Amino acid sequence: MNPICKLLNIQYPIIQAGMVWCSGWKLASAVSNAGGLGIIGAGSMYPEVLRTHIQKCKSATDQPFGVNIPLLYPNIQEIIEVVIEEGVKIVFSSAGNPATWTGTLKEKGITVVHVIANTKFALKAQEAGVDAIVAEGFEAGGHNGREETTTLCLIPMIKETVQIPVIAAGGIGSGKAMLAAFALGADAVQIGSAFAVAEESSAHSAFKNKIISAVEGDTKLAMKKLVPVRLLKNEFADAVSIAEAEGADRNRLMELLGRARAKLGMFEGDMENGELEIGQVSALLKEIKPAKAILDEIWLEYKSGLQRFNSLFHELNL
Amino acid sequence: MNPICKLLNIQYPIIQAGMVWCSGWKLASAVSNAGGLGIIGAGSMYPEVLRTHIQKCKSATDQPFGVNIPLLYPNIQEIIEVVIEEGVKIVFSSAGNPATWTGTLKEKGITVVHVIANTKFALKAQEAGVDAIVAEGFEAGGHNGREETTTLCLIPMIKETVQIPVIAAGGIGSGKAMLAAFALGADAVQIGSAFAVAEESSAHSAFKNKIISAVEGDTKLAMKKLVPVRLLKNEFADAVSIAEAEGADRNRLMELLGRARAKLGMFEGDMENGELEIGQVSALLKEIKPAKAILDEIWLEYKSGLQRFNSLFHELNL
Repeated sequence: MNPICKLLNIQYPIIQAGMVWCSGWKLASAVSNAGGLGIIGAGSMYPEVLRTHIQKCKSATDQPFGVNIPLLYPNIQEIIEVVIEEGVKIVFSSAGNPATWTGTLKEKGITVVHVIANTKFALKAQEAGVDAIVAEGFEAGGHNGREETTTLCLIPMIKETVQIPVIAAGGIGSGKAMLAAFALGADAVQIGSAFAVAEESSAHSAFKNKIISAVEGDTKLAMKKLVPVRLLKNEFADAVSIAEAEGADRNRLMELLGRARAKLGMFEGDMENGELEIGQVSALLKEIKPAKAILDEIWLEYKSGLQRFNSLFHELNL
Repeated sequence: MNPICKLLNIQYPIIQAGMVWCSGWKLASAVSNAGGLGIIGAGSMYPEVLRTHIQKCKSATDQPFGVNIPLLYPNIQEIIEVVIEEGVKIVFSSAGNPATWTGTLKEKGITVVHVIANTKFALKAQEAGVDAIVAEGFEAGGHNGREETTTLCLIPMIKETVQIPVIAAGGIGSGKAMLAAFALGADAVQIGSAFAVAEESSAHSAFKNKIISAVEGDTKLAMKKLVPVRLLKNEFADAVSIAEAEGADRNRLMELLGRARAKLGMFEGDMENGELEIGQVSALLKEIKPAKAILDEIWLEYKSGLQRFNSLFHELNL
């Protein structure tokens, strides 16, 4: 049996990434009901908002779901308390030191998965006692590693480094890419962008439409002097790009970024002044569909890829 | 039968990339003798030097081999004449407009494959009448596309765009990565970095040793204001990185680059002042081996990946 399906008690080794302003209870419960793992993204929620989302998610599905917690979150203590109080069974942590909270969560019987982008943090996460890791490549949307290692190069590196199961992320929005991740040794996939445009995603419809219209080259890794983040091209991203080409320092970038730009763009729908976080795979996304249809198509394409390989296997007389 | 094996009349769908200062007749003939396609990289050769390499390659193998020609080469007319006069059967063209020379080469019965990094040039190449294309992702060494599209995202885009066979390149140095490329729809793989450290590669031994010591994050895409190129970290690359962070313009970058730095590093072995072009996959390369051993290991790992998928196929009861 697939080690991630076993660990998380899910039908398909497909995990919907926790994403700010996209993945509330509606998306998470829809993915979980479809047989994957839905995740509520706590990064854009006040603790009491998160509590409401968890409660609604429990009402909307009897299947396992998780909560993604960026560990650098200002109210982290309260967020952890909410998760424990509400009896959440699975936490995906990211953006921070996995040693700080993994013990507390594990003591409460919570399964902990940590998101990393390099071998150093993969080892740290394993040492902290997490149950699995998500290895996220350069092509992923949102915040990203400084090494710029792509998923194709990262997954084999991480598999050589840790013994716990590895979930591949970054550039995966189809069954073909899922099969590629498995070829590299991944035990499961985490999919963000493709679920950001699900009907149940809480992203603004203008943002969803902009994602499915994106073409190659429309996302760029920006803000490398702060924390690297992959942005979709718009007026704001262009301004960042020009500032960076001119050698803008951290202060100028922080000033440009200002406050609450991600909410402005992704949730409120300001397509020019908002910060639009999405993966490179957006160029391959063509329509807005229910989460179940997205998951089913990915699984179907993955299976037909396996069938194609089975024919090749026999053709080569292996 | 595999369409690239058929087109190029080779045993394995594995192509050794033409690489400046690495791929002379020794490497090309070794790869061709091992059942892949060896390629002489004309980019670092005067026309008469190329002629000698072609002649020696013909003496060293009776198997098909190719010549890679960067179309922006200053003596391009002479290079094309040498290739035709010497009866070369396969040309991989890159870095330039495929419409300019494809017709001339095809008239002489030469198979033409063009290297691209985006859908626009994939279409241009198909329209120019090339027989296949190489689609090269962001993680590849040397010169690279402006869109920064990774191999994982690029291959499905290109497969949706053209009808001719597609050879995947960038980040592929193992059988696992080869299998991943096939999962994405590629018909074959082109492998650079892993062959740059072959015993038969003409790269300086200091460069080969630096490649196999490289770790994640040691290569970066630089010189984006000129032509993007993936460089291995050293004093020169650090100087470029600092200049770029300060907002250096084209002129300052050209001055920094100067002349003949690639030769200085890759061929003459100056590890600090030379320009060292290599792929991100260098972090996964561990030893210097004969080209045949490299190819055999990749093929073996690819086959065992297919076997693993065959078990999974049966396990899932497909």
